[in-house]
Amino acid sequence: MEIVADEVISSRTGSDSDGDKGFVVTPWVVKGQLDYAKLVEQFGTTPISKEILERFKKITGEIHPFLRRGIFYSHRDLDWILDRYEAGEEFFLYTGRGPTGNVHLGHLIPWIFTKYLQDKFGAELYFQFTDDERFLYSPKETLENTKKTAYDNLLDLIALGFDPKKTFVFLDTDYMETMYPIAASIAKHVTLSSARSIFGFENSTNIGMIFFPTIEAATCFLPCILKGKNIPCLIPAAIDQDPYWRGVAREVAPKLGYYKPAQIHGKFMPGLGQGGKMSASQPETAIFTTDSPKTVEKKVLSSFTGGRATVEQQRRLGAQADICPVYHYFYFLFEQDDSELGRIYNDCTSGTLLCGDCKLLLAERVKEYVIRHQEKREKARQLVDDFIVSDVRGGLRKKSGLS
Amino acid sequence: MEIVADEVISSRTGSDSDGDKGFVVTPWVVKGQLDYAKLVEQFGTTPISKEILERFKKITGEIHPFLRRGIFYSHRDLDWILDRYEAGEEFFLYTGRGPTGNVHLGHLIPWIFTKYLQDKFGAELYFQFTDDERFLYSPKETLENTKKTAYDNLLDLIALGFDPKKTFVFLDTDYMETMYPIAASIAKHVTLSSARSIFGFENSTNIGMIFFPTIEAATCFLPCILKGKNIPCLIPAAIDQDPYWRGVAREVAPKLGYYKPAQIHGKFMPGLGQGGKMSASQPETAIFTTDSPKTVEKKVLSSFTGGRATVEQQRRLGAQADICPVYHYFYFLFEQDDSELGRIYNDCTSGTLLCGDCKLLLAERVKEYVIRHQEKREKARQLVDDFIVSDVRGGLRKKSGLS
Repeated sequence: MEIVADEVISSRTGSDSDGDKGFVVTPWVVKGQLDYAKLVEQFGTTPISKEILERFKKITGEIHPFLRRGIFYSHRDLDWILDRYEAGEEFFLYTGRGPTGNVHLGHLIPWIFTKYLQDKFGAELYFQFTDDERFLYSPKETLENTKKTAYDNLLDLIALGFDPKKTFVFLDTDYMETMYPIAASIAKHVTLSSARSIFGFENSTNIGMIFFPTIEAATCFLPCILKGKNIPCLIPAAIDQDPYWRGVAREVAPKLGYYKPAQIHGKFMPGLGQGGKMSASQPETAIFTTDSPKTVEKKVLSSFTGGRATVEQQRRLGAQADICPVYHYFYFLFEQDDSELGRIYNDCTSGTLLCGDCKLLLAERVKEYVIRHQEKREKARQLVDDFIVSDVRGGLRKKSGLS
Repeated sequence: MEIVADEVISSRTGSDSDGDKGFVVTPWVVKGQLDYAKLVEQFGTTPISKEILERFKKITGEIHPFLRRGIFYSHRDLDWILDRYEAGEEFFLYTGRGPTGNVHLGHLIPWIFTKYLQDKFGAELYFQFTDDERFLYSPKETLENTKKTAYDNLLDLIALGFDPKKTFVFLDTDYMETMYPIAASIAKHVTLSSARSIFGFENSTNIGMIFFPTIEAATCFLPCILKGKNIPCLIPAAIDQDPYWRGVAREVAPKLGYYKPAQIHGKFMPGLGQGGKMSASQPETAIFTTDSPKTVEKKVLSSFTGGRATVEQQRRLGAQADICPVYHYFYFLFEQDDSELGRIYNDCTSGTLLCGDCKLLLAERVKEYVIRHQEKREKARQLVDDFIVSDVRGGLRKKSGLS
């Protein structure tokens, strides 16, 4: 699983209007200038409607900025999840990460949203580190390293404030006695030809990768199996993971007697370069949670912007907020107040706010955020045992007090 | 793993001379009249030479009837195993079973031989119950059932007298936290196209079956990983399992830095019908270890034989021991003394011994054997914990006193 994939993103491929060819979104490659309306169409999902936002408001008393601003924009069966919830049936959350390297802000987006869902709905979270898949996918990667990375990434997750009583984190390779029988039960219903058509596997693909989708899909049913009852599942994640859910978990669920997992899809936070999502493979345009304040400042101040060639032009024409990562950083994470955000947008596009000042403002906020996050991240080192489950530790059953 | 596969065996397909088309041997299907010389050629293995038999005699002080009589007839790198052993390097044994149903005498042959190797070479045995593969392979099979069958089959294994201190039995689904990382490391080196060419997987094959070979191959390296050193592996099994070793384990071993596993191949014990191996799918011609003495007697007395149409003919022409399962039962298991066996053969083929008397003699011996086995099998119920390892039980490390 790679909620935000880390492949090289070239700047726009093809022309702006060449939407279909201008981007690629698969579980392993996300590149190009993403057109989210086209993604909804391509993946056959449903945009989040005003009605759904109203239902969120009714239930939670608010609409999270990520929802208001369309950062979470698409879903599958989210209305059904709300139906079940309103009928008194708890659901669980499932998300995860392929531990490839340091966590950046783009990775935090779905986790922050997941934390909000946990808080508002009292939902348990099952968080899967797919250390096996990262190992199988990357020729040079070792299992020791992906495991080490997972434990390091876990600090970022804990730093966000998840409820340890309701959050169950596991590494695939530490939890396979529990996961494999579920994965095998799924695999029995997935033919090679389906897997090839869903994931585009080639003759050169290794057979670990071919089996892996069943392990990522297995978590959709894990709590049901452990608790011996059907429980609705909601997966907050980027849409690139959709083949696992639509192609595998949702197809197989009825055959195993479980609910189909529902999904809510987030947008990718952009990098600080021109176009494309934030990516660990372009570290100069990504803010890592472990970056020093000085590095953060330097990266933000070096950001591409939607500014004009000269101050005079910018004063006259205004800057282009819509293509500006600096503006989008406020939009995603660093200005929660809509009217303040509107002011930044207006000042930018009217030419009142110049890019230098805007970047300084953002740099301060990102620095503050990262410093605070790093403090919590350090404290998280003491909390790992409260979150992790594994077969050796007696697993989820033990942690949940299940017999 | 299915050391003796349990597919339907029709009586001879094709004519006797139609060797190439007359039998099929794969990990999932063994049928037809087997031509062992052709199998050696087909699988590219080496017949066991007189020199190797002499080396066995030198080391163990004897040559086991299974070796003397060519019941174990072919190998790969057995000479190398003996070299290592004579140079003071211990090897381990690896065999197993796909738990499909009750154990019959045919299943016991490789186990009895494995026990002999354990005794003579002081070798540890790693015995894998591939409950996952049986589940994945058989549409109607459940994991609960394959697991239950494995625990029942284990009684037969224990009844043979393996050394609990040196014998480590596991079910795949109970030991996957240990096995999966090894399997994934193997899988990383096996492309889909290799797997298809080795095992003949089709588009309709489920992706659990496609990954499974890495789990069966993983045991070849398991003790090396647990003990942190390279240890030679000898696999006593029927030749139908060869694709796992030749195609997967031996190919990948050097890439992981381990020795290639060596093999020694046994013949299939015939059923009591005309042609073909003993098979659980033809229960009337198979002797199960759980058959009552009365059932055993009935089955043996109803056996096909190499006898003639009339007593007069048989007295004149002699019977055909070479095509007679009754004679082969003495040959495999029920007459260890070569001169006694020679007497039976001569009396049979000279017309002195009639089939009825011969079957009565065999029936007595098989009954005795089964009764004695069943006594040991009952006692084995108390010994299960001495043999089984699993992740939950702390695994092999704990049992072996490894840290």
